[in-house]
Amino acid sequence: MIRTPISELADGQTVEQSFRAADKQLRVNRQGGKYIILKLADRSGTLSGMLWNADERVFDSFDRGDYVFCIGRTQIHNGALQMIVTEVQRMDPAEVERSEFERFDADESQRLRSQLVELLGGLNNVHLRQLGEAFLGDDEFMSRLIVGAAAVTNHHAYPGGLLRHTVDLMELAQLVGPRYPQIDTELLIFGAFLHDLGKLEELSCEGEASYTDRGQLVGHIVIGVQMLDEKIRTVESANEAFPVELRLQLEHLIVSHHGHYEFGSPKLPVTLEALTLHHLDNLDAKIESYTTVIESDVAADGNWTNYNPAIGRKLWKKRD
Amino acid sequence: MIRTPISELADGQTVEQSFRAADKQLRVNRQGGKYIILKLADRSGTLSGMLWNADERVFDSFDRGDYVFCIGRTQIHNGALQMIVTEVQRMDPAEVERSEFERFDADESQRLRSQLVELLGGLNNVHLRQLGEAFLGDDEFMSRLIVGAAAVTNHHAYPGGLLRHTVDLMELAQLVGPRYPQIDTELLIFGAFLHDLGKLEELSCEGEASYTDRGQLVGHIVIGVQMLDEKIRTVESANEAFPVELRLQLEHLIVSHHGHYEFGSPKLPVTLEALTLHHLDNLDAKIESYTTVIESDVAADGNWTNYNPAIGRKLWKKRD
Amino acid sequence: MIRTPISELADGQTVEQSFRAADKQLRVNRQGGKYIILKLADRSGTLSGMLWNADERVFDSFDRGDYVFCIGRTQIHNGALQMIVTEVQRMDPAEVERSEFERFDADESQRLRSQLVELLGGLNNVHLRQLGEAFLGDDEFMSRLIVGAAAVTNHHAYPGGLLRHTVDLMELAQLVGPRYPQIDTELLIFGAFLHDLGKLEELSCEGEASYTDRGQLVGHIVIGVQMLDEKIRTVESANEAFPVELRLQLEHLIVSHHGHYEFGSPKLPVTLEALTLHHLDNLDAKIESYTTVIESDVAADGNWTNYNPAIGRKLWKKRD
Amino acid sequence: MIRTPISELADGQTVEQSFRAADKQLRVNRQGGKYIILKLADRSGTLSGMLWNADERVFDSFDRGDYVFCIGRTQIHNGALQMIVTEVQRMDPAEVERSEFERFDADESQRLRSQLVELLGGLNNVHLRQLGEAFLGDDEFMSRLIVGAAAVTNHHAYPGGLLRHTVDLMELAQLVGPRYPQIDTELLIFGAFLHDLGKLEELSCEGEASYTDRGQLVGHIVIGVQMLDEKIRTVESANEAFPVELRLQLEHLIVSHHGHYEFGSPKLPVTLEALTLHHLDNLDAKIESYTTVIESDVAADGNWTNYNPAIGRKLWKKRD
Amino acid sequence: MIRTPISELADGQTVEQSFRAADKQLRVNRQGGKYIILKLADRSGTLSGMLWNADERVFDSFDRGDYVFCIGRTQIHNGALQMIVTEVQRMDPAEVERSEFERFDADESQRLRSQLVELLGGLNNVHLRQLGEAFLGDDEFMSRLIVGAAAVTNHHAYPGGLLRHTVDLMELAQLVGPRYPQIDTELLIFGAFLHDLGKLEELSCEGEASYTDRGQLVGHIVIGVQMLDEKIRTVESANEAFPVELRLQLEHLIVSHHGHYEFGSPKLPVTLEALTLHHLDNLDAKIESYTTVIESDVAADGNWTNYNPAIGRKLWKKRD
Amino acid sequence: MIRTPISELADGQTVEQSFRAADKQLRVNRQGGKYIILKLADRSGTLSGMLWNADERVFDSFDRGDYVFCIGRTQIHNGALQMIVTEVQRMDPAEVERSEFERFDADESQRLRSQLVELLGGLNNVHLRQLGEAFLGDDEFMSRLIVGAAAVTNHHAYPGGLLRHTVDLMELAQLVGPRYPQIDTELLIFGAFLHDLGKLEELSCEGEASYTDRGQLVGHIVIGVQMLDEKIRTVESANEAFPVELRLQLEHLIVSHHGHYEFGSPKLPVTLEALTLHHLDNLDAKIESYTTVIESDVAADGNWTNYNPAIGRKLWKKRD
Repeated sequence: MIRTPISELADGQTVEQSFRAADKQLRVNRQGGKYIILKLADRSGTLSGMLWNADERVFDSFDRGDYVFCIGRTQIHNGALQMIVTEVQRMDPAEVERSEFERFDADESQRLRSQLVELLGGLNNVHLRQLGEAFLGDDEFMSRLIVGAAAVTNHHAYPGGLLRHTVDLMELAQLVGPRYPQIDTELLIFGAFLHDLGKLEELSCEGEASYTDRGQLVGHIVIGVQMLDEKIRTVESANEAFPVELRLQLEHLIVSHHGHYEFGSPKLPVTLEALTLHHLDNLDAKIESYTTVIESDVAADGNWTNYNPAIGRKLWKKRD
Repeated sequence: MIRTPISELADGQTVEQSFRAADKQLRVNRQGGKYIILKLADRSGTLSGMLWNADERVFDSFDRGDYVFCIGRTQIHNGALQMIVTEVQRMDPAEVERSEFERFDADESQRLRSQLVELLGGLNNVHLRQLGEAFLGDDEFMSRLIVGAAAVTNHHAYPGGLLRHTVDLMELAQLVGPRYPQIDTELLIFGAFLHDLGKLEELSCEGEASYTDRGQLVGHIVIGVQMLDEKIRTVESANEAFPVELRLQLEHLIVSHHGHYEFGSPKLPVTLEALTLHHLDNLDAKIESYTTVIESDVAADGNWTNYNPAIGRKLWKKRD
Repeated sequence: MIRTPISELADGQTVEQSFRAADKQLRVNRQGGKYIILKLADRSGTLSGMLWNADERVFDSFDRGDYVFCIGRTQIHNGALQMIVTEVQRMDPAEVERSEFERFDADESQRLRSQLVELLGGLNNVHLRQLGEAFLGDDEFMSRLIVGAAAVTNHHAYPGGLLRHTVDLMELAQLVGPRYPQIDTELLIFGAFLHDLGKLEELSCEGEASYTDRGQLVGHIVIGVQMLDEKIRTVESANEAFPVELRLQLEHLIVSHHGHYEFGSPKLPVTLEALTLHHLDNLDAKIESYTTVIESDVAADGNWTNYNPAIGRKLWKKRD
Repeated sequence: MIRTPISELADGQTVEQSFRAADKQLRVNRQGGKYIILKLADRSGTLSGMLWNADERVFDSFDRGDYVFCIGRTQIHNGALQMIVTEVQRMDPAEVERSEFERFDADESQRLRSQLVELLGGLNNVHLRQLGEAFLGDDEFMSRLIVGAAAVTNHHAYPGGLLRHTVDLMELAQLVGPRYPQIDTELLIFGAFLHDLGKLEELSCEGEASYTDRGQLVGHIVIGVQMLDEKIRTVESANEAFPVELRLQLEHLIVSHHGHYEFGSPKLPVTLEALTLHHLDNLDAKIESYTTVIESDVAADGNWTNYNPAIGRKLWKKRD
Repeated sequence: MIRTPISELADGQTVEQSFRAADKQLRVNRQGGKYIILKLADRSGTLSGMLWNADERVFDSFDRGDYVFCIGRTQIHNGALQMIVTEVQRMDPAEVERSEFERFDADESQRLRSQLVELLGGLNNVHLRQLGEAFLGDDEFMSRLIVGAAAVTNHHAYPGGLLRHTVDLMELAQLVGPRYPQIDTELLIFGAFLHDLGKLEELSCEGEASYTDRGQLVGHIVIGVQMLDEKIRTVESANEAFPVELRLQLEHLIVSHHGHYEFGSPKLPVTLEALTLHHLDNLDAKIESYTTVIESDVAADGNWTNYNPAIGRKLWKKRD
Repeated sequence: MIRTPISELADGQTVEQSFRAADKQLRVNRQGGKYIILKLADRSGTLSGMLWNADERVFDSFDRGDYVFCIGRTQIHNGALQMIVTEVQRMDPAEVERSEFERFDADESQRLRSQLVELLGGLNNVHLRQLGEAFLGDDEFMSRLIVGAAAVTNHHAYPGGLLRHTVDLMELAQLVGPRYPQIDTELLIFGAFLHDLGKLEELSCEGEASYTDRGQLVGHIVIGVQMLDEKIRTVESANEAFPVELRLQLEHLIVSHHGHYEFGSPKLPVTLEALTLHHLDNLDAKIESYTTVIESDVAADGNWTNYNPAIGRKLWKKRD
């Protein structure tokens, strides 16, 4: 039986197919009745589902992250597509086609990983190359990087999103850096690699991405510096001392990449590489998040999305 | 005799050579004595010159923009290099080597112009290509574009700076656009071409770049739209009507390229192309202006520039 | 039968009378049931109407802008008056008394139009007078001006609101200008005429006022300059060239009338006329919108309106 | 002998005439030499004077506020006209023509005072009229109002400036109020009268206007309420009790007239009269201060003033 | 029968006990049905109660502030605990145990009052001591101070909260002042006493705390100065004149205690005492309000409160 | 011979005594002449000295940090006291009385150090006590802490200033913490100890305090976390593992102590201890810096300091 991806579901459609239960909440309405709010997901997006007249028994019959078979009907409510779910049932993972649920199939993961290995391996600066190898050779690090998200909401908020954003930014750096001879492109590429690594500890990726205690108390910028420091200690234990100034520049690239104090950057960029990293990061993140706003918009009015408070505007959805 | 470029002059050096008198002012000190402040320029930069005990006769012996032969001695004053000029004399332009004074020699101009022709000529969209041809075929426009500056101070503030910034940005657009399939790269390239054209009317480039009345009263954003409108009328008189929606998108690219209301943008970017144009423009302008801050800095303290109020920080000057 | 104006309807009242259906939306509740939200309007204001248990057939039985006969009962919900509509039926426009629905009856329209003709015709400056005549003589322009709104929400957000705001501001200019001899009152009056004309293209007035694509992509400030430029071309084709400096000042009055960058003004006012126009425009708009907040408030607490987030405060409602 | 008003002095002119010594300071230069900086004033403006090689004897030979006879020569220094004074001598006040020094001759004072009496006397509200009479009948208050300034710098910063600003604003209120039937014009006029009275205590007008301790510690807004309270006590001791609500509204007009928290307004305007008062006050103050910037500008470049940091822009000086 | 304090009620609990009906509202749902929203209170906190299918008769059977006996069941709705009330009945105050409802029993009130008397009585400065006695000897003032709240929401928003905040701040002043010899601790203590007294008039404490007309039109800062002025007149009528400078400093302490213009402070602190008062006030208020956020949070996620928009963050709830 | 402390020097005084040459700069005036600017220091403050007609020989005859014997005369220039130095001569350190130059004599240093030992040693939490001992037992750390400054300008900008600020803040924490039972006072005290330790690396204290490269690239907040991490590794190598949650809270105290994003805080305070630490730190720093502004002010006008742009106001200087 053919599954319709969430992104292709339309209003008023009967649905009988598999989803991933990304989140579930048992709620009480004002009159005291119980219902379940589901966040249903597949590779193409997410969909809110309402299961009325529910109880604890149904709620406990599946867990967050399980695959579930749902019967229901879609509708537009408050400008967003949702599904009235009349039945939900836990599925055996073996029953589902994994490629329909994971944005990153093994191939895509492999491609990005290879690209990362190539970019770091191709560096001429021996210290950066050794440091890169220390990260690449850390199996636990790599296995977490493959599944890490870059955000809870907004841009690249899906497993593998951190790897994609990281590699994309490294490639942008490789492309743009050489246009400005005064920029040290290798430093820029390595900064792109490092800049968001702290998110591996800031976010927990079990089920939906969410903030860890450490993430909220310390934040990915400081954690990123801690991860770099630890890896430099590893490199130094096996090689000569890491150059002091190069280390300061790497730390600065992490510390300043938010670009402005009001965005939680403890330092402003003071090197051309830090400045460029901040702007390219911003560009990639904004294009990704604006694209998501456009793609996930369900406004009936054909040319414009609904007003989006996070970006303070409506976006134009091109005809043609 | 070999001329030392301004950028290579050091403290305490005796100077006897040609300069361009970019600006001159006759001033009175508190006690009533007169002196002349010169802005001396060559291809590599500018230098402030002080001619003490001057009078109207000396002041009137040369004009802004003239080449002058100066005798004097350099010194650091308030952290900046300047020259105590003891003699200044108007030169015949035939006496100077033009390539020492013009940042854009004929070759560089030609290269950028060819690049522009190629970029606009290579567009597949027939309307954009016709519109590009209308600009390229307007001799007066092209001759002004060759010598226009992109700013009075800050980035690309020299004759030809507008052309360089425009072509650089078009090339960035051509490089970055294809990485995001959801972006219409041709539209982005054309927006890069249009975005600052209003500066041809906003700035007057006789002698030093300065604001025109129209520039201060109306501004390059609105002027740019007026220039586009005029050129579209030209195209429409010779061809079919210009597509309404394409025109609105081009106008929007000009109108929103400052990105934020507080930077004088009457509209926020609401298309992916406008968003990307704003960020790439910002990136190119910031790299250029930070580079200028670093290059023109004379702080003795080796690793850091002086505090620069315009960018709100000191910059790190790498030891390499 | 006597109709009760919307502004005089009270809580808990049975209603059986005509309205204009300014807007209608078919919605689905969380359980999947359908209902219609109506925006009912007459000359005195608007009222939200809820028609429960509706379906497509009822929804399609009338169009936005139609006159409808409604049966229902008013109530206060979330601090605002609304009507539970039990029946809605399309009416023949011939059945309604137009003066009960149009804020501008023919007389008021005529009065404002005459006032506009008189103000523009009374100008001594021949260039301004000819330009004014070009606008007044453009029938399409005038017919749109009569019905244009000045905003989607906030101040003067009704058909004819633009004409009222324009003429009111011109009269304020005529009153206040002569108190400051350094101000060119004719320029100020003409600036008041021009300042919001771009809203004729920014807003669409079919049914409820809403933004056009051009309005959102380009904005009424730039559109206003385009309209001025076009009309100056008309004047110049019939007369001598329009004085360059006068034109710049008119453009500046449009371009700077929002007064501050953060309100989307691409230029700050730099002439006394532009400064004064900005302040008088602000005064007239604020008085109008605060008055609307007070008049449309339904808070039970007698002396104060509810907190209004748009203006960041509660307003005092005088006991008299 | 004919005196040239300060506003008509030009560069390079020999001067031998009377001035008012508005201020004087004995300074030491970096090498240890002493000189005097004078602020010379007449009705038309002020002029900075430099007396080199001075000593305590010269400095003590006249006081601030004295009329002095100066010999010297004008020059432009740092873009402003100043005078190199070679001789300064104290004059007998009887020797000078007072009308050349006082912006307010007796006639102008009398005219404004009469206008004030008429505006307050013409009020129909008996409580406001009695309160107005209490102020008008307070001789000490009136004699201070005649000579008070409205500011130390910026707008209306001269003796009598407070009276002029007050009466001008009351007249604007009388003109604009009736255009909005929802506004209580008498309340608006009385608010205009009260709004800046606290400046009589905030500023000291002996010699140049300067802040008093009370002005800096408490401020004219709170002082103004204290003055109103005291006067209401006076009225109440002779009449019936002053209506509570009217009093609150008057206090609110004073308390909120700065309009925004960031301008030191402890409350935002919440009545239409307070809103209108704030905007008219702002309009009158801004026109006055922009006019002063234009009139006192000495930039050689004909069309534009120098950049003025207080208003964040250059102003256009019309060619007429 | 033992009453469970509100703060100890859990989800899904049956409740049959007394509450104070702090507020009640009769609402209409979208379909036209009526229901009552109750704010139930006791000493430990407040709880929202929903009484469905209500009518005017039930609504009128008790008043705001009455004690009521409620039967119902608790539940979590939208992340907050509420109670579905099925029965509500007015109680005779004699039936309830007052100490379960009043945050301030007589003992606590007495303790704070004694502490206040001791702090003011212990001042060495005779003028401050006399002024303190004038306040303490004003019975009406004291009886209102005992029951005043310090805010409508946020910190110390309960009867007696003003007294607690005032005494707490005075004690902080007594503790911290002596650590800085340059600070006049007695002035600081007296400023702490005065700083929020205007809230006695700004807020009405009948039933729930709410703003008075005077509070909204004039504000507690200006009212506080009026109260001080009145009391100084009392002191002066019985003693010698109050020292001018001391009075200005007291007024300044009130006027500047919000610390920044944008928080409605008409003056910035310019004395060390005013600076310190502002910071200690801020510290005490913030600790109190963050504590309330943590205590009243019902988020299921153990370590963090829900996001609180007023403070712009989630707070960490320690596991200990 | 008796030395007059800098803070007691008056205008027009002849000076012949020892100073510490805190800084020296060889400058060129506009005419090309050379002079030396000295920063002369002693325990009581600093004084600018001008040595005219100097040359390299004089400049090289002493170093920054040397004691010098100066002959000269004081004067007020631009509102600040300075000295015209006519002779400067290097002194043997043995010739000077060290207690006249060091703000921290051995006794004061010893007292603060003992206080620190006592505060850390008195902690009941074994992990905090062990961690404190690790810092106290690190001789290099302690010897740098004794001489560290807390800032380059502003508050506590002198050798030993960091120790004083740290101990003062710890004592404030010990005083204020127990007033709020919900606060963990030991955690607060330890946070006070840690919060600025990163300044030991951020600032270099040879001669005048100045920023290090690491300080500018990484900043004292991130450095502070690195120092903590290193010390925890030390503790863990000798003891059991440090509790994870306690470590996160300590890191959070450092990371959030600037309190607001715009002050370079990468995280907002989310625990009561972090909130309190931020406010007490702010209080102590502000009192110290306002005190310095008042003490170092030389305005002739008795009651007020000059306008200080860093704090945006004038301060009141109390009489008596």
